[in-house]
Amino acid sequence: MSTKVAVLGAGSWGTVVANMLVENGHDVTSWAYLEKDAREINDQHTNEHYMPGFRLNPNLKATSDLATAVDGAELVLFVVPTNVVRGTAEQLLPILQRTGNKPILGSLAKGLEKGSYMRISQVIDDVIPAANRQAVVVVSGPSHAEDVATKDLTALTAASKDLAAAQRVQAIFANHYFRLYTNTDVIGVEMGAALKNVIAIGAGAAVGLGYGANTKAALITRGLAEISRLGVKMGADPQTFMGLSGVGDLIVTATSEHSRNWRAGNQLGHGERLQDVLDNMGQVVEGVSTAKVAHELAVKEHVDMPITNAIYSVLYEEQPINTVIKELMARDAKPEFDN
Amino acid sequence: MSTKVAVLGAGSWGTVVANMLVENGHDVTSWAYLEKDAREINDQHTNEHYMPGFRLNPNLKATSDLATAVDGAELVLFVVPTNVVRGTAEQLLPILQRTGNKPILGSLAKGLEKGSYMRISQVIDDVIPAANRQAVVVVSGPSHAEDVATKDLTALTAASKDLAAAQRVQAIFANHYFRLYTNTDVIGVEMGAALKNVIAIGAGAAVGLGYGANTKAALITRGLAEISRLGVKMGADPQTFMGLSGVGDLIVTATSEHSRNWRAGNQLGHGERLQDVLDNMGQVVEGVSTAKVAHELAVKEHVDMPITNAIYSVLYEEQPINTVIKELMARDAKPEFDN
Repeated sequence: MSTKVAVLGAGSWGTVVANMLVENGHDVTSWAYLEKDAREINDQHTNEHYMPGFRLNPNLKATSDLATAVDGAELVLFVVPTNVVRGTAEQLLPILQRTGNKPILGSLAKGLEKGSYMRISQVIDDVIPAANRQAVVVVSGPSHAEDVATKDLTALTAASKDLAAAQRVQAIFANHYFRLYTNTDVIGVEMGAALKNVIAIGAGAAVGLGYGANTKAALITRGLAEISRLGVKMGADPQTFMGLSGVGDLIVTATSEHSRNWRAGNQLGHGERLQDVLDNMGQVVEGVSTAKVAHELAVKEHVDMPITNAIYSVLYEEQPINTVIKELMARDAKPEFDN
Repeated sequence: MSTKVAVLGAGSWGTVVANMLVENGHDVTSWAYLEKDAREINDQHTNEHYMPGFRLNPNLKATSDLATAVDGAELVLFVVPTNVVRGTAEQLLPILQRTGNKPILGSLAKGLEKGSYMRISQVIDDVIPAANRQAVVVVSGPSHAEDVATKDLTALTAASKDLAAAQRVQAIFANHYFRLYTNTDVIGVEMGAALKNVIAIGAGAAVGLGYGANTKAALITRGLAEISRLGVKMGADPQTFMGLSGVGDLIVTATSEHSRNWRAGNQLGHGERLQDVLDNMGQVVEGVSTAKVAHELAVKEHVDMPITNAIYSVLYEEQPINTVIKELMARDAKPEFDN
């Protein structure tokens, strides 16, 4: 059954998701911020800056006009950087009010809003009232765009307080290589997704500094523990952090060179300057801003997050990364879990 | 403070641990099964078969005589393959009875006993009564021998129902690159350690078949879920599977080419025959026998373990691995967690 879908954002993940949904038989329009990107998708069937060498399905349409993109859409997916989610939602609201269209809204962005510490679905919820939409569904988990593009077997979570909406999204996305598992713990899914990017910077840095597999595994494991601590404090079910959007996404982000966060950390570990690293990445590195938000939230909520705090001190307080990583590992011997 | 330690088993892990404990200032004797291996350690200060190129500290002593190895030892570590733990303990008992020595016993082996489904510490406990020993302590977590040999920062769990004994072992092992966290959930620590080897075979196979990072992460995550299901059924605390001996060890085993279990799976994925893979490995691949024991235990306990069962069917029922992996991923869409 074909569904009309709008995909907001034409970065690597937005492009690959939009293309996959076209191949699933849906009527998909991609919204690109720049008109030249929309034109390249329509005319060349490529998106060279974000997905070099990737051939798009000719049936994928693109536009830089938001009203055109979402016209009649039953599902609108936010696949934009965290820091523009609110602005995008604010542009979307009057369109929905004018047309009376009430789509399901999906969030595929990963982060926390600066200042408000809101999760992405909360930001969307905050801007677009229930009168103008169906449920908000979060799609998250271990999914490098590059691997989905080559039809790697991929399993993600579709999380919503509205299980029927999550099941609807599950059906729209499903194909022989891409599967969604439903989950109702939206808080846990989004906290895992946001916070893992910071740990991935640490894992990349450790490898850049020359540490091996044991150190990487220890960092990821202790990272998962602190993600879970903050998540549970914010209302998440601890079980969610053992799932696809928790440990699954953490593994893929913290062990693969496809991950921008891992690469940024790796380059810092090799001694490069933060500004140079960010300048050369050419795409948003969500973990850098998340490190600041997460650090502030942990302080506010009195949650111990040693790895996040260490990465924060490197990114924002010019602490040397080699010393920071060594100090992390040299903390006092103690029980593995506090209870 | 120097402690007299006996390390039973001179494979790669036993050799590296014995050598590290010597460098920590302890009086260490390594027990090798073959006299020629003991002689090589004493005379050449190498163990070329298991740790090629690794220079041992000249203060590390070795013997193939068990009574000599454990004479006066305050700590005796079992670092032998799972299938010889019982036999080794049966040899050790009369020596302890004769000398009246009551050491702490440590288990660094990972697996489940065939037929009895016992964890390693249960096997040791079953053979050596409390009258002839202090507590049994399990040391487990993400620790490739090769990476400890190069002083990679490593964090493990020391688990015992006797917290004081675990703290004693913690202090004996600790140095600037090697840290132990104590835990009292022995069941959880040992179940995680044993079962992850089976998942690692699956992860290696997926990579061998050409799948990418998303598939690997999904397999590891769903693998952790089934490990936790069986572990909890056997009495473990679910939290333990989020720790170093759970997800930590799973990550290092299922993502690194240092892992024999991963390599065995990888070669199967490339189409090699099981017997050839095992013949060429030159060391025990614990996951192959654990797959059988775990499969039987899961059936007996009515616990759903799709990945373990799939690997079992490849290893013992000649099912083709590519079909098995595809079927695993194509199971019906459903909730991520059952409750």
